Amino acid sequence: MSIDRRPIGIFDSGIGGLTVVKELVRQLPGEDIVYFGDTARVPYGVKSRDTVVKFSIENTLFLLKNKVKLVIAACNTSSSVALTTLKRNFKVPVIGVIAPGARDAVLSSRSGRIGVIGTSTTISSKAYEKQILKNKGLFKPARGRSIKVFSRSCPLFVPLVEEGWLASKVTDNVIRQYLSSLKNKDIDTLILGCTHYPLLKSGIRKVMGKKVTLVDSAVSTAKAAREFIEARGIANSPGRRAALRFFVSDEAQRFKKVGESFLGRRLSSVVRVKHGI
Amino acid sequence: MSIDRRPIGIFDSGIGGLTVVKELVRQLPGEDIVYFGDTARVPYGVKSRDTVVKFSIENTLFLLKNKVKLVIAACNTSSSVALTTLKRNFKVPVIGVIAPGARDAVLSSRSGRIGVIGTSTTISSKAYEKQILKNKGLFKPARGRSIKVFSRSCPLFVPLVEEGWLASKVTDNVIRQYLSSLKNKDIDTLILGCTHYPLLKSGIRKVMGKKVTLVDSAVSTAKAAREFIEARGIANSPGRRAALRFFVSDEAQRFKKVGESFLGRRLSSVVRVKHGI
Repeated sequence: MSIDRRPIGIFDSGIGGLTVVKELVRQLPGEDIVYFGDTARVPYGVKSRDTVVKFSIENTLFLLKNKVKLVIAACNTSSSVALTTLKRNFKVPVIGVIAPGARDAVLSSRSGRIGVIGTSTTISSKAYEKQILKNKGLFKPARGRSIKVFSRSCPLFVPLVEEGWLASKVTDNVIRQYLSSLKNKDIDTLILGCTHYPLLKSGIRKVMGKKVTLVDSAVSTAKAAREFIEARGIANSPGRRAALRFFVSDEAQRFKKVGESFLGRRLSSVVRVKHGI
Repeated sequence: MSIDRRPIGIFDSGIGGLTVVKELVRQLPGEDIVYFGDTARVPYGVKSRDTVVKFSIENTLFLLKNKVKLVIAACNTSSSVALTTLKRNFKVPVIGVIAPGARDAVLSSRSGRIGVIGTSTTISSKAYEKQILKNKGLFKPARGRSIKVFSRSCPLFVPLVEEGWLASKVTDNVIRQYLSSLKNKDIDTLILGCTHYPLLKSGIRKVMGKKVTLVDSAVSTAKAAREFIEARGIANSPGRRAALRFFVSDEAQRFKKVGESFLGRRLSSVVRVKHGI
């Protein structure tokens, strides 16, 4: 098997995609990463389909300038509405976060009652429902059960995470308010369908109870990327010291600060670029 | 006095500037208005100075294509960090929302203890403090009092308004949490330093109490625009039926819906433009 030294490209609307980076570093420590965070135009989740498709194309073009071997759309909103266009138009393979999360949810559920939370644009695209139904062959049901999906958009979760209110009374109340409709649906699996949401895991677990499995799409996506790279034989040399490079469309300093606290390591290379704006 | 038929141009990061439009229609019913809402890149309040200056220049250039006689930067963040650049570079007169709000706050206060709330970028720019001190000649103090300004950024207010949670328990808790530090400062005047905030007025009043005067920068700004137009003799014919035209950088439909409910009238002309993105 030959060695492919090209980096993996990841883009997100902002910092959320770092949850995927964290998992990639754990699962594929030898791979170089080029990350683009569109911090000047964040958030994507309240914007229209057309606009998010346009932004996602620009982000992919930027990553391609950095000669990536694989593009990960680490933003659920982008993955929901732009993945088909990206796959159709670009030669580089593109992985989104929806299919891996949907697959893991189907594998995890026994009752078939699966909840999905995400941004307004993600939820109204019904992307998770479609992927869950595509994967229903993998479902190992309890007797007499079939798959049923319950969705809820949670537009305030991203601003709460960006504000750093990860564990506060207000946040718990917002979580309770958004999830109350899902709470009555007797789901056994809940997809955290936005890369920001794993940061609210403890509050979500408190509301939903311990019996509900939370599917973190960042973990699922990193696993899918690893499987893809292994299957194609395009891995970099394992055991090497990988380089992480970050690019953002707004100020580098803010991203660096939040990113370092989030990834628990120094980010030596964060560069602001003019791209797209 | 001649009649100047050119429209007034207004821009904002999104829908917040409609609070200024509403007041303009009330105070200057004969004036045509061209509004630009940068809904594809909203919000501005968490983005860096440079980026907001760039966006504000692009928004002004767009309004100039529509031959406006006056530009109103109806966004507090833009007014805080970009107004000097706009005034320096463009021939068209530009009015921001900071100076009018600061002036009204100084005129209203007796104790001289003035509070300011706004987005992170507005508050860290200290634009209100500077304008308040510039206007201190207008201060009619109670005996022995001088001016002192207390500021607080409230990053979650914009998402709460965008989510439509104008009066809810969660919103009240967020308001209480943000304003607790101001509550102890014994202020008699509070500037709502973001065009979204007037929509949360009733909750803010509940927390701050009836004795604190709330300065709505939208009202102050429309008044400043009226005075400017009258002083320069560039008013349109009064009593005519004015035309309001709206342009946005994301989907027109969403803006139309929110805008109609907010302005209480049909918006027949909302057009999406590619500008800036």
